[in-house]
Amino acid sequence: MTPRRAALLLVACCLATTSLFAQRTPEDAIRGVLDKQVVAWNRGDIDGFMEGYWKSEKLTFVTASGVSRGWENVIERYRRGYPDRKTMGTLTFSDIEITVLSRDAAVVLGHWQLQRDADRPEGHFTLIVRRFPEGWRVVHDHTTALAPPKQPSQ
Amino acid sequence: MTPRRAALLLVACCLATTSLFAQRTPEDAIRGVLDKQVVAWNRGDIDGFMEGYWKSEKLTFVTASGVSRGWENVIERYRRGYPDRKTMGTLTFSDIEITVLSRDAAVVLGHWQLQRDADRPEGHFTLIVRRFPEGWRVVHDHTTALAPPKQPSQ
Repeated sequence: MTPRRAALLLVACCLATTSLFAQRTPEDAIRGVLDKQVVAWNRGDIDGFMEGYWKSEKLTFVTASGVSRGWENVIERYRRGYPDRKTMGTLTFSDIEITVLSRDAAVVLGHWQLQRDADRPEGHFTLIVRRFPEGWRVVHDHTTALAPPKQPSQ
Repeated sequence: MTPRRAALLLVACCLATTSLFAQRTPEDAIRGVLDKQVVAWNRGDIDGFMEGYWKSEKLTFVTASGVSRGWENVIERYRRGYPDRKTMGTLTFSDIEITVLSRDAAVVLGHWQLQRDADRPEGHFTLIVRRFPEGWRVVHDHTTALAPPKQPSQ
């Protein structure tokens, strides 16, 4: 290979690498993790849904019931709360706002809704996501259900 | 001043500055902001409490009622929800866990409780705090009230 050809090849490689990274921003990657979670949930696959979470005993998950700690406890909580397809319903995430805080940390604010035969619970979540060698994972989840609208009689 | 004295003074200054910074970790500074909030609240000073928040229209605050945006809306919400000392009660923060995410960002998980004559509401919060020239400020607050324990009849 002539030096000129080698130089051209090097430039081409650099450009290709740059464009590869440009396509995959942290926001894109994080959105990809959330999208995969929704797809998994909607095929009744809690294990697949849980792949979006940090598989660590340091994972924290906060709701109106309190704080759950550790990946095993969180999946157990989901299995107990959503024992079948009917209770799982159809999940939608919307109004996703991702704020990158550093090279390997971001916060996500979003809205969730379940469409079920009996009801349509919904609410918001704040997620702290961090970048690991395997990709971005939720390390902390604070999920709120919106208080159901009050009946006129209440 | 002799060159020797000047050199000694310089060393003394450097040591003093280093020890000053060593004493003030991000965790200490963030805890200081939260402590000030509690003190302000407990003297009935919502304006002082709100100094812990980022004074920006981008401030976000999530509860079971939904998402409030902007410092003005958040203080308005507090003023409406806690119109007097009696409803403000006595605030305690506990179980504070601070995770520093970068030089200028951290996440705080904590427990809050209000002691009032009529009740003792409590719950958890997830805060995103960022470092500004004026100090660390809460830029995102997700606060949950614990569901009250069910009565045996329910």
